[in-house]
Amino acid sequence: MHVKPKLYHCQGARSFRPLWALEEMGLQYELIMVPFPPRVREEGWLDINPFGTIPAFFDNGEVMTESVAICHYLAERHGPTELSVSPNEKDYGRYLNWMYQADATMTFPQTIALRYRMFEPEKGLQQAGDDYTQWFFSRLKAAAEMLGDREFVAAERFTMADIAFGYALKLAAQLKLGAFPENVTAYWNGLKARGAYQAAMAKEAAK
Amino acid sequence: MHVKPKLYHCQGARSFRPLWALEEMGLQYELIMVPFPPRVREEGWLDINPFGTIPAFFDNGEVMTESVAICHYLAERHGPTELSVSPNEKDYGRYLNWMYQADATMTFPQTIALRYRMFEPEKGLQQAGDDYTQWFFSRLKAAAEMLGDREFVAAERFTMADIAFGYALKLAAQLKLGAFPENVTAYWNGLKARGAYQAAMAKEAAK
Repeated sequence: MHVKPKLYHCQGARSFRPLWALEEMGLQYELIMVPFPPRVREEGWLDINPFGTIPAFFDNGEVMTESVAICHYLAERHGPTELSVSPNEKDYGRYLNWMYQADATMTFPQTIALRYRMFEPEKGLQQAGDDYTQWFFSRLKAAAEMLGDREFVAAERFTMADIAFGYALKLAAQLKLGAFPENVTAYWNGLKARGAYQAAMAKEAAK
Repeated sequence: MHVKPKLYHCQGARSFRPLWALEEMGLQYELIMVPFPPRVREEGWLDINPFGTIPAFFDNGEVMTESVAICHYLAERHGPTELSVSPNEKDYGRYLNWMYQADATMTFPQTIALRYRMFEPEKGLQQAGDDYTQWFFSRLKAAAEMLGDREFVAAERFTMADIAFGYALKLAAQLKLGAFPENVTAYWNGLKARGAYQAAMAKEAAK
């Protein structure tokens, strides 16, 4: 018997990436919402995800915890789909670079701002939050140059790399970190207008 | 005419991952050493890498800046090689999870300790460095559980995911962040004993 992929998700968290990817691919899946941060607010969470983080994803014996890795996996294991770029396409390196950059470079710095400004202001480390907000915008400026006037980051079509990078923009907008470069705003407006993005937003809100 | 892949690298930096990968694959390449941090110490660096970071990698029209993405790319574009795990193998999800986790979860927190303890101590934000050192060791404990007594992180053979995770351990050892769990130490000793690891160390030292 085939069991559907199972995704644990917190509203607005990085696990939105695989949720959006599942909607883009039109796959059947089981969605389980947990409170944020699950490490503190969901009993037994470390038994589900020893890293204490979100997402947690289960499919066919695989256990995954990295949001962009799950998108990558879905495209290859539940494809074929135009959402991935294959090694024989011209933009393969560009695609991978945006995929890996999305979390390591564009999302992590934001979590430092989130921590010291919103979750632990009593520590008096707002300056570290400010430093990494500045760090984020400096990288975003370079990303804006790389993007140029393209509609999508790689291969001239919507791919998992747009989901990966798009979520970094979603988080920055949510945290009101500051204004995006003009071409990034246009790009981000295009992503938000997608049916699958809106379906993912509706799915998390309905739970 | 085929032009060799070109890698810009700073001694001890994340760009060690693709250097090690190039050595494991036995590929021809051009290595260019730059001082760390290149953003500050290498004139014109932003023209080479607009993100200001290291590595920068050029191959066949592709421009890449994310160390794990380059390893992923090398395996697929310059393979076939046993260093990658293919979608039809059992551990494909596990492989991808370790690949993406290596930088986003296991390396970034260390750079915060590096920044506030060593590069900018005058800011008085050592506590943020301490917080993220603790954060790193909490994730490393979970990684140690996932590793168990395996010799390699996925697919029962040495892969790019070992290079990706191995560099996070290399950096932590270099920064003297603290002791690893026992099984992680054994694993890390195994990686350091590899011929290609030692060849990469020799290459960066010789320049």
